[in-house]
Amino acid sequence: MSEAYAARRDRLRERCTASGSATALISRPANVRYLAGVAPHGAVLLLGKTEDLLVYGGPPESPLDEGRPDEALRVHTLPSPGGDPAVAAADLAAAQGADSLAVEEHHLTVTRHRAIGSVAPRLRLGDLGAAVEQLRVIKDEEEISCLRIGSEIADQALSELLESILVGRTERHLALELERRLVDHGADGPAFTTSVGTGPNSGRRGHRPSDRRVEEGDFLSVCLGATYRGYRCEIGRTFVIGTSPADWQIELYDLVFASQRAGREALVPGAAYRDVDRAARQVLDSAGYADGLPPLTGHGVGLEIDEDPQLAPAAMGKLDACVPVTVEPGVHIPGRGGVRIDDTLVVRPEADGGPELLTITTKELLAL
Amino acid sequence: MSEAYAARRDRLRERCTASGSATALISRPANVRYLAGVAPHGAVLLLGKTEDLLVYGGPPESPLDEGRPDEALRVHTLPSPGGDPAVAAADLAAAQGADSLAVEEHHLTVTRHRAIGSVAPRLRLGDLGAAVEQLRVIKDEEEISCLRIGSEIADQALSELLESILVGRTERHLALELERRLVDHGADGPAFTTSVGTGPNSGRRGHRPSDRRVEEGDFLSVCLGATYRGYRCEIGRTFVIGTSPADWQIELYDLVFASQRAGREALVPGAAYRDVDRAARQVLDSAGYADGLPPLTGHGVGLEIDEDPQLAPAAMGKLDACVPVTVEPGVHIPGRGGVRIDDTLVVRPEADGGPELLTITTKELLAL
Repeated sequence: MSEAYAARRDRLRERCTASGSATALISRPANVRYLAGVAPHGAVLLLGKTEDLLVYGGPPESPLDEGRPDEALRVHTLPSPGGDPAVAAADLAAAQGADSLAVEEHHLTVTRHRAIGSVAPRLRLGDLGAAVEQLRVIKDEEEISCLRIGSEIADQALSELLESILVGRTERHLALELERRLVDHGADGPAFTTSVGTGPNSGRRGHRPSDRRVEEGDFLSVCLGATYRGYRCEIGRTFVIGTSPADWQIELYDLVFASQRAGREALVPGAAYRDVDRAARQVLDSAGYADGLPPLTGHGVGLEIDEDPQLAPAAMGKLDACVPVTVEPGVHIPGRGGVRIDDTLVVRPEADGGPELLTITTKELLAL
Repeated sequence: MSEAYAARRDRLRERCTASGSATALISRPANVRYLAGVAPHGAVLLLGKTEDLLVYGGPPESPLDEGRPDEALRVHTLPSPGGDPAVAAADLAAAQGADSLAVEEHHLTVTRHRAIGSVAPRLRLGDLGAAVEQLRVIKDEEEISCLRIGSEIADQALSELLESILVGRTERHLALELERRLVDHGADGPAFTTSVGTGPNSGRRGHRPSDRRVEEGDFLSVCLGATYRGYRCEIGRTFVIGTSPADWQIELYDLVFASQRAGREALVPGAAYRDVDRAARQVLDSAGYADGLPPLTGHGVGLEIDEDPQLAPAAMGKLDACVPVTVEPGVHIPGRGGVRIDDTLVVRPEADGGPELLTITTKELLAL
C-alpha cells in the first residue's frame, strides 16, 4: 500500500510541474492523508524539490497514531510545539532551493498565508487550487474496498436497530445507539453526526437528533455512516412506525423511492453530474415538490463525507468509473414529516454490471 | 438573555470604531454564536453601518435549530444555496454604504478573502484580528452557569462508569459509554472526543481510544467533557485497576497530584499565565520529568474547548476573575503509562473564596 502514496505524490508532482511550480505545500488534512497515508493533527506535506517531507508539531508523546508513512517520505517534527507546520515547511522548501511554492489557498487562512510569505520572502507563492481534490475523485480498488467494508458495518448497525423496540425512545438515543453499534462492528467511528428524525422531523436532511420520542404512526428517517480506515460512507432509510402506513405515507414513500431509483439508474460513466441530479429531481418536481428540495441529490464520498462531485443542477463535469457517490433525494413536508432514501454506490461500466450498490439494506417500506 | 448578545455586539462595535473600521464581518463559528446567540452552519455576522445582519445559506428546510437571534439582529438567508455567506455579507456591507470592513483573517481562507475583495472592490478590507476571542475570555455568570451544569453532567457520567465492571472492556467502548451517559444526563453532546487510555496508553494527552482492553494492574486515564448550551468543559482523572496500586504508580500519582494542586492554587486574578504554568510544571521538572512534558498545562474553555488563555511557558498575559480554565498536568512514561489529572475551574478573587472548582469528582487515587 505504501507505494500507492508515493505514486499519488508523483501524479500530483507531474501536475504541479506542468503548471509551473515544482514544489507544493498541502495543508488540508484529508489531502495530506491521501498523499502521505497518515495525517497527524496539524500536519502538512511538502512536495519538495529534493525530497518530500511530512511536517508536524504536536506533543512528543503522541506520534503517528495511524501508522508510519512510506519510505520515500521523510518525517520532520517541529522543535518547538507552538509553531505552524505550514510556515516551517515553507522555510524547508526555501532551504531546498525552491523558488516557487504552490499552496492550497482554499484551505490556508489569510493569516497563515501571510506568515508563509514572510518566513520565505523569496519564494513565489502560487495556488495549487483543488488539484489534490481532483486526484481524489476516482478511487482505486483499495479505497473502494474500505468504503465497502464501511457500508457493511453501517448496514449491520442499522439492521440491529430495527430489531429493537423503537416506540418511546428519543431521536438522540437512537442516534447514539447506532453510533455505538458502528464502533462495535469495527468502524473507526461515525462518518458524520448520525441523523435520526421522527414524525415532523422525518425526511429533513441533516436533522440534528432531538429529544422527541418515536410515536405510533410516525415516519422514522435515519441517516448514518461508518468511517473505515479513514473512508466515509453514508446510508439513509425511512421507516414507518406501527402496523400499517397511512395512504399519504405510502404515496410519499413511493415517490421518493422512484426518484432515488431514477438517480441510481442514471449513474453511468460519462453521465453529466447535472443529468444524474435531474433524473432524481424531476420525479419530485413533476409531483409538485419543486420548492424546498435540497440543493443537491448526491455527492462524492471518500476521505471526507462530502467530496466532489456534487450532483446538483449547476454542477459541471461528468462521472467516471470508480467514483463513489451518494444518491439521496428526499421530501420534507413542514409540520408533517417526510422521506429520504440514501445509498452509497460506485459508478461502474455497464459491462461490469452497472453501478455497484454498497449499502444493501432493503429499500422496501418497512412498518416497524 | 437576548440583550446580552446585543450588548456584546455593542462592545465589539466600540472596539472596531476605536480602531478605525465601523463595520466588521465575523465568520468564525464560535464567534458568530457568541455575538448572535445562534450559528447555523456557515453563518456569518455582519456588524453593519446601519444594522446588524446574520447571513447564511443552507437548505430552506433547516432553519435556526438553536432558536431565534435577538430582535436587534436581522436574518438574511441567501437566495441560492451554493453561495458564500461571507461574500454576500460583504456585498450587503457595501450596499449599506460602508467604506471599510474588518474581517477575521485568522479564519477566512485566502480564496474567500479574495472573493470578498472582488464582490466589493471599493470596500477597504482590514483585519479584525482576535477581537472577538478577546471579548470571550472573561465569562458572564450565565456562561459560567452553563459550564457548571456541563461539569456536573461530566462528573455524573464518570461516577456511573466507575460503578461498572471495567476489566476486559476496550478503551473504545468505555469512551462510547461515557459519551452516551453525557447525552443521557442532558448534554448537547461530548465537548471533544472522549479519551480513554489504559496500561501503556494511560496518561497520554489526547490519546485516541483503541481496542486495548483494561487489565488488572493498569493505570486507566479518562478525559471527557460535556457541551451544555454550547459551552464545553473538561475533566480528566486517572485510576488504578485492581486491589492495590504498585509503588511506582502511587509515586507517580502523588507527583502529578502535587503538580495539579500547585497549578490550581496559582489561579488568582492578576497571576501571569506563564506563572500558573510554571507552578504546575516545576513540580514535574524537579522530579526529573522535564522532557516530554506537554506544551501547556491548561487552557481556557467556553464555546470552544481550547480557548485563550493558554497556560504555557511562553504565554503573555494575566488572569482575570471569571475566566474558566483547565489545569491538566500529566506525565506519560513510554511503554509504561502515566497519570493525568484535569479540572475545569473559574478564577475568582480570594475574597470570594478563590478558584471555583467545577469538576468535583474526587482526585484521590481510586483502586477500581
